[in-house]
Amino acid sequence: MPKLNENYLNLKESYLFSEIDRRVNSYAAANPDKKVIRLGIGDVTLPIGSEVIAKLHEGVNALASADTFMGYGPYQGYDFLRNAIVNYYDRNNVSIDADEVFVSDGAKSDTGNITDLFDRDNVILIPDPVYPVYVDTNIMNGRNIIYIDANEENNFLPMPDHNIHADIIYICSPNNPTGAAYNKEQLKEWVDYALENNAVLLYDSAYECFITDRTLPRSIYAIEGAKKCAVEFCSLSKTAGFTGTRCGYTIVPKAITFTASTGAEMSLHAMWYRRQSTKFNGVSYIVQKGAAAVFSEDGMAQCRENIKYYQQNARIIADALSRKNISYFGGINSPYIWFKCPNDMDSWDFFDYLLTKAQVVGTPGAGFGKNGQKFFRLTSFGNRENTVEAMARIETLF
Amino acid sequence: MPKLNENYLNLKESYLFSEIDRRVNSYAAANPDKKVIRLGIGDVTLPIGSEVIAKLHEGVNALASADTFMGYGPYQGYDFLRNAIVNYYDRNNVSIDADEVFVSDGAKSDTGNITDLFDRDNVILIPDPVYPVYVDTNIMNGRNIIYIDANEENNFLPMPDHNIHADIIYICSPNNPTGAAYNKEQLKEWVDYALENNAVLLYDSAYECFITDRTLPRSIYAIEGAKKCAVEFCSLSKTAGFTGTRCGYTIVPKAITFTASTGAEMSLHAMWYRRQSTKFNGVSYIVQKGAAAVFSEDGMAQCRENIKYYQQNARIIADALSRKNISYFGGINSPYIWFKCPNDMDSWDFFDYLLTKAQVVGTPGAGFGKNGQKFFRLTSFGNRENTVEAMARIETLF
Repeated sequence: MPKLNENYLNLKESYLFSEIDRRVNSYAAANPDKKVIRLGIGDVTLPIGSEVIAKLHEGVNALASADTFMGYGPYQGYDFLRNAIVNYYDRNNVSIDADEVFVSDGAKSDTGNITDLFDRDNVILIPDPVYPVYVDTNIMNGRNIIYIDANEENNFLPMPDHNIHADIIYICSPNNPTGAAYNKEQLKEWVDYALENNAVLLYDSAYECFITDRTLPRSIYAIEGAKKCAVEFCSLSKTAGFTGTRCGYTIVPKAITFTASTGAEMSLHAMWYRRQSTKFNGVSYIVQKGAAAVFSEDGMAQCRENIKYYQQNARIIADALSRKNISYFGGINSPYIWFKCPNDMDSWDFFDYLLTKAQVVGTPGAGFGKNGQKFFRLTSFGNRENTVEAMARIETLF
Repeated sequence: MPKLNENYLNLKESYLFSEIDRRVNSYAAANPDKKVIRLGIGDVTLPIGSEVIAKLHEGVNALASADTFMGYGPYQGYDFLRNAIVNYYDRNNVSIDADEVFVSDGAKSDTGNITDLFDRDNVILIPDPVYPVYVDTNIMNGRNIIYIDANEENNFLPMPDHNIHADIIYICSPNNPTGAAYNKEQLKEWVDYALENNAVLLYDSAYECFITDRTLPRSIYAIEGAKKCAVEFCSLSKTAGFTGTRCGYTIVPKAITFTASTGAEMSLHAMWYRRQSTKFNGVSYIVQKGAAAVFSEDGMAQCRENIKYYQQNARIIADALSRKNISYFGGINSPYIWFKCPNDMDSWDFFDYLLTKAQVVGTPGAGFGKNGQKFFRLTSFGNRENTVEAMARIETLF
């Protein structure tokens, strides 16, 4: 009989967002006359801009003719896309090498799959609350996780404790779910801590396009020393409305190497290349064509229009909470608004209360960790009309 | 310092097809005037049919407008695609449940990622030669692999040895690389062996669409008892020319359950759902739209035209080998032709010989295991002109 991976028994039964789906679908089925507004999962609603759409069509057309047909692509992604990503970083004054860029179907896959490269026996440092993929995928590997508290006292921006040793550190900034964003000095402290511990820093920058404050770094590589310790994950889901189109990328610097117990030098870049070439066959050519257009001047201008629209939604949500004297975090350099549940409610209770009383779906903070127990996340990715209506319903309710 | 996954040190330095790419690219760079013909990696060359192309465009158009925009999809894939797959199986007289179908970006990802569900401590049974992903991904997990010999004596169709116990069994039929295909009675013996060992049978049917002999099963679920032990992986890469478009699917029957050491009942289906919802965000909506069209009547008719074309290529390759008295395997219910290297050459030597003397790229059998040491694989996926020319060059050479 096969021995199953029993670490799965230590997971919550379902992934956070599939549990939310389950509750919402069951409510909607029982109440077909009610209009449910979903500001839960961070899913965009605006259509993709015409520049990207045109290139997606071009990608499809290429497959329709023998002369232009594209079969298996390079494991790391096409040069045209990797170079476009390098240029995008350049424009933000960060220099990376195309050879260090790996195109994937999304940051979720990569943040999950990167755990393949490490032994079970490592100390993992994860802020709480946080995007549940980091925690769940390490539990699947049976690893020892140390949590650091992100809370109101530290403005949800915890700093390293130099008395604690970690081998692998997860940081997401701007943060999902709290919306808090680290500044340069704070990130420098994290990079220094990683270097001092000879640790790997896994940096999720999926929300970098929401940064409006120009003093905040949009990439970990804006910080000196990061190329010696940090892997960066990014996604087009929020930058370009690609939640259903699927494309992301991961930067693995070649300078990150460690000595194995055998004395062999092991490069994280070489390992990730081996992992991806063995377990992945690249992203659809169609999607890569569209993704490259995201980084063109006109493509990016259209993306920015959409981002502005969501930022206005964030304002609407924030203003409504302010009027009700509910203090919140995020919403400025982030698409997420994070606030304490009214009346000291527990976050899943508040979730059910909001769903049944106002037909508004948010995300219970407890789904992101114990420090989220009393908090709630709303996203600015809904459409304007729904966002306005949802906040009006919430204002009426309290 | 993080402990890396040192099992990677036990892998060959590169994945088979990235090593081939390396050698071919380096030869081509040094000999820019030479026309290299690639019959190595099993990459299709014919364009995608108009039915599928139309639906891919439709998928792109949906993303261009707010009313039809698609964000995150269901983790297992859209119902319209899963139902289309169920109907496809129905037409081949195999009944599966849409709930048991998981849509993915390709069979390679799934055959690799499925290893996440098992403990390190399992006995893995893998035929040799075989598609290298099975071996490499288990080495990455540090697992104990038992090989069973596929060779000329058993027509490259090894049967189970009831004296050997295995927990997890890999079978690929029609086989990559040998082209050999099991009949019903043979597969029944494998299913019985899996049931008798309480093992999981991982069945790769990526080449089922090349089966012309109607007595041969096109799915493991054509065999009684398979739903209690077998997971099936399939791909649109070869069926529909999707090597660059990327779509596959995996069937995980709900009836496959095992008792954990804690006494808990664990379902492979539930574990795979948890794995996929946590580490994957589904396949591009555009691609799923196109994939569903593959299974429509007209879409499938167009795919069959392409398959016929490749089957004629296989005939051309086979006939040329026959004229040179080189005996071969496969090529009938399979797109691959597998033959012994002439003059008792070693397969990598023959690879280099063929590349430098005839500028024809094939795949050295050694890349698939020790029993492939003296064998070579050619694919029928080239275009007609190149296939004819490649075989003419080979005929001239010997």
